[in-house]
Amino acid sequence: MSAAAVGRARARLIAVARGDEPPDLVIEGARVFCAHTREWLDGDVAIADGLVAGLGAYEGGERIDARGRFLVPGFIDAHMHVESSKLTPAQFARAVLPHGTTAIVCDPHEVANVLGSDGVHWLLDASEGLPLTVFVMAPSCVPASGFESPRRELTVGDMEAILRRRRALGVAEMMNFPGVIAGDPEVLRKLEVRGASHVDGHAPGVMGPALDAYAAAGIRSDHEATTTDEALEKRRRGMWVLLREASNARNLRALLPLVREHGPDFCAFCTDDREPDMLLREGHINQMCRIAVEEGIAAEDVLVMATLNAARAHGLDGFGAIAPGHRADVLLLDDLVSFAPSLVLAGGRVAARDGRAEPFDVPATPAHVLGTVRSAPLAEADLALEADGPVRVIEIVPEQLITIARTVEPARSGGRVVTDPERDLAKIAVVERHHATGRVGRGLVTGFGLRRGAFASTVAHDAHNVVAVGVADADILACAARLQELGGGIVVASEGAVTGELALPVAGLLSDRPVEEVVEGLDALHAQLAQLGVTIEAPFMTLSFLALSVIPALKITDRGLVDVERFEIVPLGAS
Amino acid sequence: MSAAAVGRARARLIAVARGDEPPDLVIEGARVFCAHTREWLDGDVAIADGLVAGLGAYEGGERIDARGRFLVPGFIDAHMHVESSKLTPAQFARAVLPHGTTAIVCDPHEVANVLGSDGVHWLLDASEGLPLTVFVMAPSCVPASGFESPRRELTVGDMEAILRRRRALGVAEMMNFPGVIAGDPEVLRKLEVRGASHVDGHAPGVMGPALDAYAAAGIRSDHEATTTDEALEKRRRGMWVLLREASNARNLRALLPLVREHGPDFCAFCTDDREPDMLLREGHINQMCRIAVEEGIAAEDVLVMATLNAARAHGLDGFGAIAPGHRADVLLLDDLVSFAPSLVLAGGRVAARDGRAEPFDVPATPAHVLGTVRSAPLAEADLALEADGPVRVIEIVPEQLITIARTVEPARSGGRVVTDPERDLAKIAVVERHHATGRVGRGLVTGFGLRRGAFASTVAHDAHNVVAVGVADADILACAARLQELGGGIVVASEGAVTGELALPVAGLLSDRPVEEVVEGLDALHAQLAQLGVTIEAPFMTLSFLALSVIPALKITDRGLVDVERFEIVPLGAS
Repeated sequence: MSAAAVGRARARLIAVARGDEPPDLVIEGARVFCAHTREWLDGDVAIADGLVAGLGAYEGGERIDARGRFLVPGFIDAHMHVESSKLTPAQFARAVLPHGTTAIVCDPHEVANVLGSDGVHWLLDASEGLPLTVFVMAPSCVPASGFESPRRELTVGDMEAILRRRRALGVAEMMNFPGVIAGDPEVLRKLEVRGASHVDGHAPGVMGPALDAYAAAGIRSDHEATTTDEALEKRRRGMWVLLREASNARNLRALLPLVREHGPDFCAFCTDDREPDMLLREGHINQMCRIAVEEGIAAEDVLVMATLNAARAHGLDGFGAIAPGHRADVLLLDDLVSFAPSLVLAGGRVAARDGRAEPFDVPATPAHVLGTVRSAPLAEADLALEADGPVRVIEIVPEQLITIARTVEPARSGGRVVTDPERDLAKIAVVERHHATGRVGRGLVTGFGLRRGAFASTVAHDAHNVVAVGVADADILACAARLQELGGGIVVASEGAVTGELALPVAGLLSDRPVEEVVEGLDALHAQLAQLGVTIEAPFMTLSFLALSVIPALKITDRGLVDVERFEIVPLGAS
Repeated sequence: MSAAAVGRARARLIAVARGDEPPDLVIEGARVFCAHTREWLDGDVAIADGLVAGLGAYEGGERIDARGRFLVPGFIDAHMHVESSKLTPAQFARAVLPHGTTAIVCDPHEVANVLGSDGVHWLLDASEGLPLTVFVMAPSCVPASGFESPRRELTVGDMEAILRRRRALGVAEMMNFPGVIAGDPEVLRKLEVRGASHVDGHAPGVMGPALDAYAAAGIRSDHEATTTDEALEKRRRGMWVLLREASNARNLRALLPLVREHGPDFCAFCTDDREPDMLLREGHINQMCRIAVEEGIAAEDVLVMATLNAARAHGLDGFGAIAPGHRADVLLLDDLVSFAPSLVLAGGRVAARDGRAEPFDVPATPAHVLGTVRSAPLAEADLALEADGPVRVIEIVPEQLITIARTVEPARSGGRVVTDPERDLAKIAVVERHHATGRVGRGLVTGFGLRRGAFASTVAHDAHNVVAVGVADADILACAARLQELGGGIVVASEGAVTGELALPVAGLLSDRPVEEVVEGLDALHAQLAQLGVTIEAPFMTLSFLALSVIPALKITDRGLVDVERFEIVPLGAS
């Protein structure tokens, strides 16, 4: 809108509030949640040009009869990564709007690893005009470490450019907490980047003097607390506690005593990483509301954390409350138990009804975010494992991101180390896929239970190279070749041929298909993996974190095995 | 500081927090107020380079033994006008630091009326480096109305330039609430000014649809509520309620039920306009703390309103809390009743001790803010009152800013209307003093009780022309001539000669002398006025508001009598 058009819209909103012009829409008779006082008010809510005009009695406009229902602000996710949903922003919006989420604050560091700042600018473009409001934080840690090979490093200059964009708010989670606490000048420079109004934190388990050091750097939020003690200490240090309920980190119940004992101030909800099946089957922020009420937190305190507090954590004026001049993101709830909205308005328009999103225009996907898998052709020789004596093995810990660094005496054949399905020893390879360098990291992994075949993915935190696990080299090669053809995704192979696949053509991370299809595709692949012997829950998610070089103990990148505790590349041989 | 120096200071702060470097200062053994949880913590507080490093145990550094005392964040005034203190920023700082105020958010619209945007830039310059942190809002309403004659109008461009400065936060109180509610495009343009992160409001008595209209314009605070109902309605509309305790508007007690019933969220303290005697004799924000605790509000809720909430209302990161990375503005209190700090640290340095400010460097006052009284020479003819029949008279309402529009049959002499001390009818004149236009507004006033002589001031809201009240024209002329010589101030005359004066050389509004001297000077003038028959409290303050053309009912500017309800200039004659 031009400045003049903004002025005219504002003048009309004011006239509607005064009662001199009819609103576009009136929601009649609901109990209206006031986030600023945590109470329920009676009155009709008038909406004009996508904003709330006021609460009172109004003539004219379309009417929605909301008697007997609760009208609450749309939910806001205070910290998350859209990419974890494996959905494009538009498909993500379609997935979460029916759950009542109308705004998110996301850190697009996965697309940034694959596409550089182009990925972040694309995500901002691809979310322009969606009924879901997408705010972005400038990724601060690309690459996650020097052991990883993203497309390129994201610089302070890239961050500055991102922060010039509308909907860009600040510096995304500063995951390099050891760097901050150590006072590394390069890391501190990212915290002072021009245009950032605030900095999100990420400090798992950090407490005491180290936490003071981290907070002293100007970091004012954290979403990694797993205990009430940790969360309380962070709040006492002036940080927003973003209570998390992710697919791989279900921390909410453990943190609710903080709210029970100290109130909801400086607390907001976030999902961090949610897989598509969790979005579809459990919901989004509304699932957190459900749990919190179940755990005995007053609905009013729950709602303020799910709405206004997330807005306040990020300085989002005009979001998170049903008040004049605020964006008309509102939900009708039949009860304060299920938190299943019967109607979702985003910017004053119906965005979802009874669990289904209304159709909306989706921007076309530009070519430059497709076809991002550029590996050198992979041959059997690239997968050869050579070492004398005992070797290092990555051991998976079920349902956790950490691994254990094991040492075993491997099977050998023709002088080479080989897989040993009887002892659950599979091969793992990470193939650089951004610049076709031909760099391949190789090792052994245990814990999947794989008896034959292979599976592979271009979702491999954080650099998102190709990660593959297999018993037979031929199956690994088949997987890698197919991922190249698909432009990314997840594939399963056995007996030398690909047997199942889910294409993730956008950056090799995201599908432009609806969440239901993506979940169906994943379910089919999970079933195939079970046939191949895999026993653990969520094997693809587990796989995707084996390349993340900043979580203990033993990980693997295209540069080789990483001993995260010693923070160095280590050889396969353990002797 | 250069970027590199900022980085080095940050790195040192982090090292101190970690415990690897000694702090500058450690405050030992106090009960430390945590504003983020409203609780008291035990631990030593480390300070380095003016910031809080952490809370724990530290080696080295200077030590302050604070056992048995309370350590709380410095108080923040969320909305005020420094000019009401009649003190330069440095002298104001010296006056309030001993009361524990370490930061203010001020609207310098009085100096803006006299000096245009130069006045605001000067105030920012004059407060640079003071131990008191002075934040500025860009004045939105200069002139207060078209009936007033400031030096010049403050434009949107002026506001933009102000908002480029460090310590400039947003748009100052939008006093033209009728303009906002009516949707006046010129007024709305000021709300959209580039660089403003927020807009303060001023909407006395505005409720219902008019309040919705005002809030819909994006205005997110108000300090004019006088009843709990009004304040609650404003908070429900998403506005910060800035509870006010001014010299001329002691609203705090009446508003505290809001806090008692709905908690302290979205409530902060402000003083708006405090005369120097109130600062000296009663205090500043600490006086509000005292009252609130007296009225039964929990000390923790009181403290959060006096500190962190004021910072949050203005988005001031790093202020209002004792937490890592926050400015080390802290107070030691012996009790939570008197709120008289025994020690005040501002930016980690001792700023006041036992009620006395420590000396600090004061910037020199530049010539361009002096000598601002430029009236045309005033002659008796300029004071002549001519009208047939009954005439309008401004009637003072003791201790209020409103007046009553009376009609009386005046005394006459030589065909002219004359003063009539027997009936308490004095002459009032407003003399344009910015451009020597010779424009003089004339009328009659009742209520002072003046029997003889005259008094005059260059403090005359908002345009700050010369306002004079007198029984004898000769005394009014003597006052006006002396104000010209002084470059502004307050003077009293009788029998044709000036008998007392207080020079306010800076913009004709401010003294560069200490508050004690200013109060002494005002006391002496008050005593003289009593001798001349004046019976009301605070006659100079009352005088200063008689020219403010936006408060009912009858006021006077250099353009003549203003009927504020009809919003037009009216003649002396009432027939």
